[in-house]
Formats: sequence, structure tokens, C-alpha cells
Amino acid sequence: MRWQYVSKIIGILVVFLGFSMIFPLLCSMIYKDNSHIAILVSMVITIFFGGIFYLVAKRTTIEYISQREGMAIVALSWTIIGLFGGLPFYFGGAGSGFTDAFFESVSGFTTTGSSILTNIEGVSPSLLFWRSLIQWLGGMGIIVLSLAILPFLGVGGMQLFKAEVPSPVPDKLTPRLTDSAKILWYVYILISALEVILLLFGGMNFYDALCHTLTTMPTGGFSTKNASVAHYSSAYIDYVIVIFMLLAGINFSLHYQMLRGKTLIFWRDSECRFFMFLCLGFTFLIAFDIYGSVYDTIGKAFQYASFQVVSLVTTTGYATADYEKWPGLSQVLLFLCMFIGASAGSTGGGMKCARIMVAFKYCYREIFTLIHPSSVSQVKMNGAVIPNHVLRSIMGFLALYIGIFVICSIAVAAMGVDMVTAFSSVAACIGNIGPGFGDVGPVDNFAIMPCAAKWLLAWCMLLGRLEIYTVIIMFVPEFWKK
Amino acid sequence: MRWQYVSKIIGILVVFLGFSMIFPLLCSMIYKDNSHIAILVSMVITIFFGGIFYLVAKRTTIEYISQREGMAIVALSWTIIGLFGGLPFYFGGAGSGFTDAFFESVSGFTTTGSSILTNIEGVSPSLLFWRSLIQWLGGMGIIVLSLAILPFLGVGGMQLFKAEVPSPVPDKLTPRLTDSAKILWYVYILISALEVILLLFGGMNFYDALCHTLTTMPTGGFSTKNASVAHYSSAYIDYVIVIFMLLAGINFSLHYQMLRGKTLIFWRDSECRFFMFLCLGFTFLIAFDIYGSVYDTIGKAFQYASFQVVSLVTTTGYATADYEKWPGLSQVLLFLCMFIGASAGSTGGGMKCARIMVAFKYCYREIFTLIHPSSVSQVKMNGAVIPNHVLRSIMGFLALYIGIFVICSIAVAAMGVDMVTAFSSVAACIGNIGPGFGDVGPVDNFAIMPCAAKWLLAWCMLLGRLEIYTVIIMFVPEFWKK
Ligand SMILES: [K+]
Ligand SMILES: [K+]
Repeated sequence: MRWQYVSKIIGILVVFLGFSMIFPLLCSMIYKDNSHIAILVSMVITIFFGGIFYLVAKRTTIEYISQREGMAIVALSWTIIGLFGGLPFYFGGAGSGFTDAFFESVSGFTTTGSSILTNIEGVSPSLLFWRSLIQWLGGMGIIVLSLAILPFLGVGGMQLFKAEVPSPVPDKLTPRLTDSAKILWYVYILISALEVILLLFGGMNFYDALCHTLTTMPTGGFSTKNASVAHYSSAYIDYVIVIFMLLAGINFSLHYQMLRGKTLIFWRDSECRFFMFLCLGFTFLIAFDIYGSVYDTIGKAFQYASFQVVSLVTTTGYATADYEKWPGLSQVLLFLCMFIGASAGSTGGGMKCARIMVAFKYCYREIFTLIHPSSVSQVKMNGAVIPNHVLRSIMGFLALYIGIFVICSIAVAAMGVDMVTAFSSVAACIGNIGPGFGDVGPVDNFAIMPCAAKWLLAWCMLLGRLEIYTVIIMFVPEFWKK
Repeated sequence: MRWQYVSKIIGILVVFLGFSMIFPLLCSMIYKDNSHIAILVSMVITIFFGGIFYLVAKRTTIEYISQREGMAIVALSWTIIGLFGGLPFYFGGAGSGFTDAFFESVSGFTTTGSSILTNIEGVSPSLLFWRSLIQWLGGMGIIVLSLAILPFLGVGGMQLFKAEVPSPVPDKLTPRLTDSAKILWYVYILISALEVILLLFGGMNFYDALCHTLTTMPTGGFSTKNASVAHYSSAYIDYVIVIFMLLAGINFSLHYQMLRGKTLIFWRDSECRFFMFLCLGFTFLIAFDIYGSVYDTIGKAFQYASFQVVSLVTTTGYATADYEKWPGLSQVLLFLCMFIGASAGSTGGGMKCARIMVAFKYCYREIFTLIHPSSVSQVKMNGAVIPNHVLRSIMGFLALYIGIFVICSIAVAAMGVDMVTAFSSVAACIGNIGPGFGDVGPVDNFAIMPCAAKWLLAWCMLLGRLEIYTVIIMFVPEFWKK
């Protein structure tokens, strides 16, 4: 482990984070909301410490980063950025104390969107803007992580989803990956700009349109309103957000290919097809279930069903309805959405559609092998055979995901939380969704959770966001040897 | 598929089932409970149809059964026996109609123990005796199935748990497997006899002692009392049953080896060790959780915790307390018990400890591979390397188990059942446990479930009992080709 590399890169990221606080600072000056001191102090501290991280390794030239160093950088940078990103909340008095500030910040950067704020509208506009901005920045990080970094680290089968970029990317992590990052970010910024415009048409003011865009595109789910998107009671706004949540839940390298003229790519890619059919199928089932029992018209039923399904499958976590009052079938389906998640290479969390597909195919192969014991059958994705080690990595990922979900649920329950809340809060945090069921449902928040549970859940967010292996490996003594 | 083989073997089993109805018939004559006509009619019908199955294939000499035929025999015989075994309930008027009778019968033979009887003590003693007996017979079937049939069919990694029997068993299914079956059954009968005696010492009458033994050894869980084992409020009876549930949850070939003098075998076998530590660990956690909050003394807390943990891990499903009123941690742990299950080669259900262990090791190997990419590491069990195809089969089993659990939960919820009840009823039936949470909790029963749900849940019981592959494969058109 060459710590000077780790320190230098994290230093750069933290300094960048510090400078990005200039936006909420400007916001505070416009709204005169008295948060400018808190933000300025946070900014100075962040840039100062970022500078130290950078300067201690200033002379080092980074040419090549090993797999192990790559993992350490990923896991540590997200944690450290979570710490510094929480400073404005801490100094600005949002939530009570450092635990809450850290929880909210990690929830932001990991694009989870679980909140400890009990009265969001009581928080100053500039802090709410920062809360939205860190989700958007986290989304940027995730796209480049899942499409350009994890594939080279060999984590969880992400090798299957390498970003197709014009410049040749060597099979090692080098600073040249900025090339692919830039292209993906252009797409991200382009779609974001489009959403702002469409939300403005729906009658949102610029501040709200911007904040909601900043949390839609990273499938983050923080809202500036207590009632989340339900605040606007507008079918137009609901559907605009549904469309952009869907776009955010699709592999960003497909968007890039789409923009380059491959118009049928969404249909040709089997994961994207699966994702679309899943959203459509669940929407119809739930719309049918809530029509009559909850909503009087088919239109309303479809509007609320599609919003909730897409919000949970893409792991955005916005709410327009209290789905805990919906019938059993709707609740079961929404609970499952929390595990399935969006596409690999999108900003969404969860297990990812591609891995669920692989698990299905894996099972089918086992059944097929029992019928034809002598045959050698392979698992394919988009027509290409999945190599055995990638398959193993994906099955291991799914088992780890469930195993950690179970162990963390036990731990949260041991802190005095009831069963449904324990299971769903962990599922919501590992899957980077935001709201769950029980005491952390769509109209509740995480403020009432015990302090220790908040730390554990923040860790779960990081774990889920960084595709588990990257974080869990830090806890294996073997990793640190030699 | 040589249907004459299938027909002949199923015929023998059904005729045997018919003759076994002589026991409840005798019971009915002793108690003069007016169920003798119902049982006699059922007996005649069963023997008659069994005879037909046998006679159409009488001339066939069975020398060798193919893997495919083996699976068809296993899946069909359990279903058909479920049908005929339900006749006494149907004619005797236990439950309402054929669905209930079939549900109760399948629940018996699969040793699940979910009941549709709302007032158990109102049913005639002879029918309750039949209800207990079919669990005991089902348990006999499971032992020979899991130790001597499934390993040769290559189902779900059961190859790892072949019964060690003195006579050499060829690697094909032949009638000679009766040798190993007999030895395992001696063990089963021996332990059963011991339990009857110990329960008699606890003040149970002979009928109750016998009936509870007949449902403890197969980890069945049907009781002759409305309040299940709680009826006796006896710490002695509770602990006797805990010990025999534990014995029933251990691989029966270990019992055989134990009796042959290998006294440390329970400790040497890694699955058995895992199973014991699991029971002990969960018992301590739950005892600690309910001490003070539910029970005043440590003794009571430990007694009820150990009973409920062992009852659910071994998938017996007896109740001495309404665990739905326990705190969150206890509920989460008990819910997990429902999935983990007992040892492979025992009469218990669930995923089985061995498979959970393999999944853990599989995950660890993936993490290890990320740290040492060039190393080739293998997954071992009891010191022996698990071959890749067995490993694949086990991971496939776990994925299928969860996948089917999820799909069936959706289906049950679609029939108008609430979320917790839907999830837990399916978990309880696939795992062959019996009671679940919500509307099918330890003090409720399955009578209120919709009719369609009863059929689906009965199918889940078969699915879980026959290690999933054996049943699911019947629904793959490919299986029936050529
Ligand atoms: K989210
Ligand atoms: K049972």
C-alpha cells in the first residue's frame, strides 16, 4: 500500500469538495438565511485538511495504482468525504449533533436519501441546497466508479459493464480514466439540464427545480419539502420525475451510445430491457391492486403506482403516497423493488437488475444440468458467455448482500428496533434507497433510530454504494498484510 | 420415462400407506370416537388404488432406475401419498372440504405442521393420531430420501451427505438401497422409543406421549393440544422435547456412527458443530432479550428461548410462547431460524446449515480471491474439497430457494394476504416449519388463508421437502422430452 498515492488522491477530492461549498455559500448570500458562517467555516476546514492530505504526498507522481490501492482509495475517500461533507450540517445545526450530520452527509454522498431531519422546511435554503448538491456529486462519483473503476478492480462482476469509451483505456487504473469519466459526466449534466427545464415548465420555482434535479439524477431522493414530491400534487411533475428516475436507473454508457446514434440500444441491451419490463410489470400489478381500494380512478392509481415503483426500483426513494397503507400485494412488490435495484452502471443502488438476471440464468443452468447431466452449458448475457470467475463473483456478491443484510438487521434489532423497521431500514440503507417500512416508512424519518444504529446504517450505505466487496475487504486482516 | 417403474413403486407405497391406516382404526376402536367408518373407507380406497398402480406394472422387474425416473418417483409419490393420506380427514370431517384435508395431509407428510384445524381438541383422537403418524412416516421418508436417494440424483449438493452404511451401495439407484434405509430407520425407531419413555416420566399420558414423539422425531410439530406444547406448562417436558428436537435436527448417519462407537462424531462433523453453536448462540441472545421484558426469571427466559429457537431452527414448529409479542431482536432471530433450518440428512427442513456454511465459505473465497488474484482457493467441508459442480448446485439451490420464496410470496399477497403474513407463511411452508408470523403466528392457524393460497402453500411444502430441484424440474418441459 503506497499511502502517499492514497493521501494525494483523497486530498484532491477533499479540496474539490471544499471548493464546491462555494455554491451553498452563494445560495446563502442570495437567500440571506444566516448559514453563511457555518458554510464558510466548513469550507475552510475542508480545504485545509484536503490540502494537508495533498501536500504530504505532493512530490509523488501517480503513474499506476494497484488493485489493492484502488480499493483502499475508493473505500476511504467515500468515508472521508462523508465526514467533511457533514460539516455544514453540523455547524448549521441541522439535526442534533455530529452523528446526525455524518448520517445525513453519508446518506447524501451515497445517494441513499435517508434523512434524520424531522422538519425539512425548517432548515435554511442553503443547507438544503448543499444536501441536494452532495447527492448530485455522489452520483457523478458512482457513475465513474461503477463504469470505469470497479470493472478494473474485478468487484462483483462489474467487469461486464465497462463503459464503452472512444479512447482506449488500458487494463490498469491510471489517471487516464478521466477521459471516460468526462464523457459520462457530460451525459449526466446534459440530462440534468433537461430535467430542470421540464420541471420549471411544471410550475416549480428555479430553486426547487434545481434541487429536485440534483437529487433525481443520482437517484438520491432528498427533497426540499417535508411531503417530498407529494407536496406538488401535480401529475405533470410526477411523470417528469418518473421519466428522469428511469433515465437515471439506466446504465450511463447506454445513454452515451444512444447519443452517438445507436437508437435501439435500450432495447438491445438485455439488462435495460429487463429493467423496463420490471418497472412496467410491477406498475401494472400495483395499479390494479390499489385501483378501487385506495384510488378511485385508473389514472390516479397508475400515476401513484408508477411513481412508487420507479422511485423504489431505481432506489431514488421520493414519495408521493404512503405505501404502507396500500394492500399486501403492493407492499410485497415494493419491498422487493428495494432489493432488486436499478441497472449496473447507473446511479441506482440495490443488487442491480443484471445480477438478478444472472442468478436466474444460473439457477436455470443447474436445472438444465440435472436434466442433461453430460451437457456443458454456459451462462450468457447480451449474447456473450460470462466467464466462470465473473459468475462466481456475482453469486458471491448476492450471497454477501443477503448475508450482510441479515447480520446488520440482527444488529439493528438488538438496538431495540422492531422487526419490520430493522429489516427495512437495513434494506433501505444497503440498497441506497432512503425510506423503508415501519418506523422508517415514506412519511417517517431516521431521527428516532438509536445513535449506534445510525452509525451502522451509514456504514451499510457505504457498503451498498461501493458494491460491498470494496468496503468489506477493508475489514479482512489479510488485505493489510505485506 | 418407464412409467411402469413409476407406477409399481408408487403402488407399493400407497398400499403400504393404506395398511398403516390400521393404527388409527385400532385407536378409533379403543377410544370409540366414531371415526372408524371414515378411516375404514379411506383405507379401502387407498389400498384399492394403490393395488391398481401396482398391478398395472406387476410383471415389471425393477433392476435399475434412471436419474430422471428417480426424480419423477420422488415428486409424484409424495404428492399422491398426500392425496390419499388426506382421505381420513376428508371423510372424518376435520377441516372444511377437500382443500383443507389435502393441506393437512401434505402438511403432515412433508413434516411441515401448518394446520387448518381451528379447534384441535375437538377432533377425534384417532384422526389426531393419524395426523401424528403421517408426520412420523414422512420423517422416515425424508431420512432415506436425503441420505440415500437425493445424493445419487445429484440434487442441491446432497452428494456431500451420503449415508455411511456398512454394505457397499452402488452408484445407481437400486432396490438395494433398502439396506441403508433399514439401518437409518432402526436409529429413528430407537430414538423415538426413548422419547416416549421420557415423556411418560414427565406425566404425559401414553397417547399424548406417543403422538408428540411421532411429531418430534420428524420435526413435524403437529400437537394434540390447541396450545401445542405450552399446554403442559412443564419445564421437564419442554427440555425433553428440546433435546429430541435437537437429535432430530442432526444428520441421521451421524447418529448411526455414534451408536457404532464414534463418540466424538457430533463434534468432529463441522455441520453438526455449526448447528449446535447456532442453537446455543441464538438461545443466549434471545434469553437475554426476553429476560426482564417478557419473563421475570433467567430460568424461564432460557427455557422459552431455547424451546422456540430449537423448535424453529430444527423446523419442528411446536410453540410454548407467542413469540410475536417478544421484542424485535428475538423476532428477527426467530425469523432467520425459519430460513436456516436444520442439518442435511436430518428430518428438518429449511435451507440446511451445511448450505449456509458453504455460502459463507463461498463468499470468503471471493473476498480472498480479490486480495490474492492469482491464487486458486477451494471450498472445503469437513476437510474435503467440495467439487465445483457440487458447489454450483448448492449456490443454485440457495438462489432458487430465495427466488421461489419471493415469487410465491407475491402470489400469496396477490390473494389478499398482508405483507408479513404472506412472507412468513411461504417461509414457514417452504421451510417445512409450520407456524410463521402475522396471521399464521404460533397462536393462529392456516384456516383463514384463501383456498388458492392453501394449494400454493401445500405445493411449497412439497417443494421445500423434496429439496426444490426434484419438484421444480417437473415443471420444465425439457424434462419430459424424449
Ligand atoms: K436513494
Ligand atoms: K415442522
